[in-house]
Amino acid sequence: MRLERQAPICVGLDPTTSRLPDSIDGTDEVAAIEQFSRGVLDSVVGITPCVKIQAACFERYGSRGVAAMERVITAAVESELIVILDAKRGDIGISATHYAAGAAATGAHWITLNGYLGEDGVLPFLDAGLGVFVLVRTSNPSGDEIQSPRCGDGTVAGLVGTMVGRLGEPRRGPSGLSSVGAVVGATKPEAAAELRTVMPDAPFLLPGYGAQGGGIDGVRAALDRRGGGVLVTASRSIIHAFVGQPGDWRQCVKNAAAAFAQEIGGVVADQDH
Amino acid sequence: MRLERQAPICVGLDPTTSRLPDSIDGTDEVAAIEQFSRGVLDSVVGITPCVKIQAACFERYGSRGVAAMERVITAAVESELIVILDAKRGDIGISATHYAAGAAATGAHWITLNGYLGEDGVLPFLDAGLGVFVLVRTSNPSGDEIQSPRCGDGTVAGLVGTMVGRLGEPRRGPSGLSSVGAVVGATKPEAAAELRTVMPDAPFLLPGYGAQGGGIDGVRAALDRRGGGVLVTASRSIIHAFVGQPGDWRQCVKNAAAAFAQEIGGVVADQDH
Repeated sequence: MRLERQAPICVGLDPTTSRLPDSIDGTDEVAAIEQFSRGVLDSVVGITPCVKIQAACFERYGSRGVAAMERVITAAVESELIVILDAKRGDIGISATHYAAGAAATGAHWITLNGYLGEDGVLPFLDAGLGVFVLVRTSNPSGDEIQSPRCGDGTVAGLVGTMVGRLGEPRRGPSGLSSVGAVVGATKPEAAAELRTVMPDAPFLLPGYGAQGGGIDGVRAALDRRGGGVLVTASRSIIHAFVGQPGDWRQCVKNAAAAFAQEIGGVVADQDH
Repeated sequence: MRLERQAPICVGLDPTTSRLPDSIDGTDEVAAIEQFSRGVLDSVVGITPCVKIQAACFERYGSRGVAAMERVITAAVESELIVILDAKRGDIGISATHYAAGAAATGAHWITLNGYLGEDGVLPFLDAGLGVFVLVRTSNPSGDEIQSPRCGDGTVAGLVGTMVGRLGEPRRGPSGLSSVGAVVGATKPEAAAELRTVMPDAPFLLPGYGAQGGGIDGVRAALDRRGGGVLVTASRSIIHAFVGQPGDWRQCVKNAAAAFAQEIGGVVADQDH
């Protein structure tokens, strides 16, 4: 993962018509979320190395929405941002191959996946040249029912993490980090520390920081032995930072992203991977 | 689920350009899979009560493919087929709400979901008026690593099944069947019987029959106490039945669907729900 010397953060782009700046006309909903997304990209480029595009926000509007998403991803790639397509796909065999081809064609570099179907649902995406973040331990409360029960020496999430660790081991780059990553909620420090033992070289994508109650403890617990290996992602606290604020909405988003970068950059010692 | 007096089968529509009848020009791939899909629909209407549309086959082609999928679903609904959107989505909160709105807008009646994120990933689809089939026990070999380990009194799949049973209990229709169903591979008879105990009133969508080695034993093991509650789905063995056969490809597909209906109709006693 090319994080250069920027803080290892990711801005989540989850555009919704219920939270638009006054200057954006919401009459055409698809046009509005596209315009908003482009404005966010312009605001955060140079501050964040990475953006995460929530596919659901665009798919909601069917093929027109997907076309807008394709244009937003193209714009992000042209701005030299690393793009994670947050699609949480999970299918097998030829269907996984189809999803992988579609995702790779957008220009996105990484995709989020659901690992419940095993490695059959992961390998086709790696074969298509994408990096993957597999959902291991999610930040939502109801995930506990399925993910936290004890199972063998660990938890159910540990079964998925063990698979991620195994698939990632032969897929490490020059930095030592693998192209097979894990989504681990920043709200679960104990789980993050336990999961790190089975995925020593996986990049961890950490949602739930800030808005969902995750804090610096969750980030520290997820660090690898080099003091890095994490990518902390925040969505609403950045892209909706303009709500109730005077002045240019883009400046509010930019300021929020900069503050987030500074906060995380102070915790993660080694950002150079 | 309205299965009337037809056999409880589902034809899976997984169109791919690598298997097209000679009479369909494959130059424009999206136009070709749409034309093929419409031909399959025309062939199976009146024989199957239900079709399952594999979203990946269309998403592979981005927004143009999704537009074609929307038209195919509309055509299926206009033919009075029950439509399952096989999208295997799995996200939470507002993102799940977005996916649910997008799926409902296509006109599809049911959607397949991944339950790894817990009920947060299921309820928004029910709220949108869709029936759901949650992946509980999949038919692919690598699913075993995550789904089959023992966990408490059952298996990991049993955790998901228990959630499906709980969510479905207050959502039973006049027939007694629930709008919260489960995907259970026809290749796993022992697992199906064990899972039926925690989901007595869930419709089971059974893939893997035929092509993947599942047989009548897998169907019988999945039956509910009324001798029904299953929907057996087959894709390639029906839609590619023309391969290597002389004559009209549509007639080959129609004959394969009719044979499948007769085979399953003979096993499932009570088709009237």
